Amino acid sequence: MKAALLSVGTELLFGQITNTNTVYLSRKLNALGIDVMYHFTVGDNPERLAEMIETSFKDCDLVITTGGLGPTQDDMTKEIACQVMGDHLVMHDDILQSIRARMLSYKRVMTDNNIKQAEMPSRCRIFYNDSGTAPGFALDRAKADGSGEKQWIACMPGPPKEMTRMFEKSVQPWLEELAEGCLFYREIRTFGVGESDLETILMPVIDGQTDPTVATYAKNGETMVRVASKRETAEDAKAAVDKMTGRIEELCGQYIYSYDGEDYSQVVGKLLIERGLSISCAESCTGGMFAAALTDIPGISAVFDRGLVTYSNQAKIDELGVKPETLEKHGAVSKETALEMAAGVKRVSGSDIGISVTGIAGPDGGTPEKPAGLVYIGFAYGDRLECREIKRTLNDRGRNRRNAMLSMFDVIYRNI
Amino acid sequence: MKAALLSVGTELLFGQITNTNTVYLSRKLNALGIDVMYHFTVGDNPERLAEMIETSFKDCDLVITTGGLGPTQDDMTKEIACQVMGDHLVMHDDILQSIRARMLSYKRVMTDNNIKQAEMPSRCRIFYNDSGTAPGFALDRAKADGSGEKQWIACMPGPPKEMTRMFEKSVQPWLEELAEGCLFYREIRTFGVGESDLETILMPVIDGQTDPTVATYAKNGETMVRVASKRETAEDAKAAVDKMTGRIEELCGQYIYSYDGEDYSQVVGKLLIERGLSISCAESCTGGMFAAALTDIPGISAVFDRGLVTYSNQAKIDELGVKPETLEKHGAVSKETALEMAAGVKRVSGSDIGISVTGIAGPDGGTPEKPAGLVYIGFAYGDRLECREIKRTLNDRGRNRRNAMLSMFDVIYRNI
Repeated sequence: MKAALLSVGTELLFGQITNTNTVYLSRKLNALGIDVMYHFTVGDNPERLAEMIETSFKDCDLVITTGGLGPTQDDMTKEIACQVMGDHLVMHDDILQSIRARMLSYKRVMTDNNIKQAEMPSRCRIFYNDSGTAPGFALDRAKADGSGEKQWIACMPGPPKEMTRMFEKSVQPWLEELAEGCLFYREIRTFGVGESDLETILMPVIDGQTDPTVATYAKNGETMVRVASKRETAEDAKAAVDKMTGRIEELCGQYIYSYDGEDYSQVVGKLLIERGLSISCAESCTGGMFAAALTDIPGISAVFDRGLVTYSNQAKIDELGVKPETLEKHGAVSKETALEMAAGVKRVSGSDIGISVTGIAGPDGGTPEKPAGLVYIGFAYGDRLECREIKRTLNDRGRNRRNAMLSMFDVIYRNI
Repeated sequence: MKAALLSVGTELLFGQITNTNTVYLSRKLNALGIDVMYHFTVGDNPERLAEMIETSFKDCDLVITTGGLGPTQDDMTKEIACQVMGDHLVMHDDILQSIRARMLSYKRVMTDNNIKQAEMPSRCRIFYNDSGTAPGFALDRAKADGSGEKQWIACMPGPPKEMTRMFEKSVQPWLEELAEGCLFYREIRTFGVGESDLETILMPVIDGQTDPTVATYAKNGETMVRVASKRETAEDAKAAVDKMTGRIEELCGQYIYSYDGEDYSQVVGKLLIERGLSISCAESCTGGMFAAALTDIPGISAVFDRGLVTYSNQAKIDELGVKPETLEKHGAVSKETALEMAAGVKRVSGSDIGISVTGIAGPDGGTPEKPAGLVYIGFAYGDRLECREIKRTLNDRGRNRRNAMLSMFDVIYRNI
């Protein structure tokens, strides 16, 4: 089964809101074994909306729309769906009652606009709305090719809270009846390898593969591998993905840190909690990003003690006991300073692990000897005291900072 | 001029990444007076990509694609653009040189895949890529209707950092040449007021307005106001927006912190640098987010001395001199602790300003008296020592943390 997602709303075309509905629905549909072929967004315009529904039906059996079901003049998804699918609107008294009850509970007056929301296509399946006034619905029609096969449209409201609730409660069970085949996929996350290098390494399992499929892609400075399989049962699909995952691990296991799409901070945070290893950090160029990422994990307070963002030299001396001579002789961005920072934060906190970072984030502050992108990460754990040097020569403050932060997680992951 | 945005990448159809490129480009194009008619997303599939370009050209003069310019097998936007627009690929030696230089600086080997990236359409305008290996380009063709008018396609890489840089540096100037009419718009950012309240306040300037238009929208826990005008000259459009901005300031000036779309961290960071006010911070529930946001600003090292992420009680005692009695009597999340944290970080750093935060981020850890969402912000500046209490009762860790961080910037902004 092939589907198109059609988002309706001029505010999307103005870029005023980010379309998160398509992300949510794509994942849900893929999980049901429905192939998502297109995402389309159109404004509140009847002709273009009708045209995009017809365009979708050229390749797809199913069109799912979000938006345009509200009470105002520019909401017209219902009318256009009727027009395309060959149906007409009739008043549904039970919906009218529930809108009236909702308005009463809001202490709002029922307007003509609200009454319009109780009109629904005559032969549709209704999806009730628990969290708003606009119900959704599904309609079908026979394919124009005379094959006797059907095409479906399902229309849901645009606000993500209403849509996701309606999907989970009503649309998903309906789709489970319609769909055939089950898709399972896995996002494998790597660090320390570029996309083209990784693709070259994985070519033996990418080339000529039809199921499971293996594809690499870059996201936020990391390289991901997606493995997907579609089989008759969910178990078969998962087994095929698992087997392929084993081959991928043989080829590039040294770069992999997660097999289920988790962030590096989540992977490391959970590992620290699991092992009961306490940690504190000393950050310079990342300015608190590492601590902020780690403390985003619920329950991390069991192991995370403190983070010291020692931006100035004086702060490094005061808070971490870095020697003024070290700063003078080697500079704040040096292996020696990184090591003293890591040892210092481990000592003052009494944590099992002390991790530090100092570097030149850019765009200014670089020199020929120490260019923007140069970063040192210190790691103190038990008797070990080590340093990793990163040279990237990249004049992008955001990317240098993010890469430095990810490298800190990588240093911990590879050493505990 | 009418445009369609075409995003290319199977990962988008899987819902693995959120499409932020369309948000960015929609805003930029609207600002240039170009109407965005459609957003389309297709997978890495040559036939469907070609078909969607042709579908776009039915209504639009301009198609902007993002994605599919990478070095790997499934990247085929360049080839398909050539096929649709009637051109062919040729090797561009200058691009080959720059890719080679980039690979050298990364200490990576040049692969056949990378060489492929130096092939570009023969008669295109090239958009160089400062932050990645894939260049972008623009191509035109004559309309099929024999009118002698032209249609354009512009292709950019998918990673948002590369795309936005390329757009600002190369694509925007090119579009300014193509587009007619001048749109000027301003994003006014507010804090501390919800969208529906703000809309009610601004109703006198929203209702019935056609130019400039005024619209409110919510983004990341903040409420924005967009004021836009389209006139014959850029000066006229700006003058109309300026005049309307004055009226908006009269209506809701107390909530506004930025008139040009800058983040709260940028606004406050620049203000601190400008005034030469040094600052240090002590964070608990935000775990370094405030320091990380502030240190994202180039040049902040002139005023930011240190940030202490005192997650454990012991860290609050050790690093900030918070009294054990205070923690015992009032708890870590209390006005008293917040005040001692702010005074403590001001004292140990010697900074002009000490700002602190302690709160319950959730989802766990809340009690009936101190629910998730309760946050205290301490502020020490000169002889002043003050506290702001925030009660939100929201069980969303990410939103509570983000709101706490923004409130810290708000406390500073309203008090210096």
